[in-house]
Amino acid sequence: MHSNLESAMQMLIKTFHKYSGKEGDKYTLSRGELKELLVEELGSYLGNSKDNEAVEKVMNDLDANNDGEVDFTEFIILMGALTVACNDFFLEYKTDDKPKDGESAQKKD
Amino acid sequence: MHSNLESAMQMLIKTFHKYSGKEGDKYTLSRGELKELLVEELGSYLGNSKDNEAVEKVMNDLDANNDGEVDFTEFIILMGALTVACNDFFLEYKTDDKPKDGESAQKKD
Repeated sequence: MHSNLESAMQMLIKTFHKYSGKEGDKYTLSRGELKELLVEELGSYLGNSKDNEAVEKVMNDLDANNDGEVDFTEFIILMGALTVACNDFFLEYKTDDKPKDGESAQKKD
Repeated sequence: MHSNLESAMQMLIKTFHKYSGKEGDKYTLSRGELKELLVEELGSYLGNSKDNEAVEKVMNDLDANNDGEVDFTEFIILMGALTVACNDFFLEYKTDDKPKDGESAQKKD
């Protein structure tokens, strides 16, 4: 039996290796593998930005050591940044939205 | 419908707020809340280290700005580091183990 956090860690590891194993180095993502991962697994996030350039930009930003491959640590840094961004969005949405509906229980003045 | 990566992100966000909302600042983990999160959600990882000092050490390392509270970004940095460590362990285990069983298909010479 796994906790939610343990499941989250497993999903991150499994998803990376699902794509990293497809071609070349089994333990890193090539540009093609990364693109596939981003489109298939995070399409609803990245797809919301109108331009397909988003994928290119992420790839360039991620490949810190510029070897054309994204290793697991670089991948986790991306996922961490995305998760923090989602959390911020979620909190802003809650803060902006809730009081307008007349719910004031949690509101500080 | 969510991909595995989207589910993982949601689980990280949900789990953080499940504990951060218990006392004091709703959007940060106090030492008590962090301890509870670590024991309940990651007990099987941290429990494997014999000493309970592990929890104390994590708390001290995490609280980067030393305000006695762990914010979401600090929490994500911990989870990222843990996930990278898990992945390394998983890969070492696979590498050490597989060839001994006579499976040589993936082995490089």
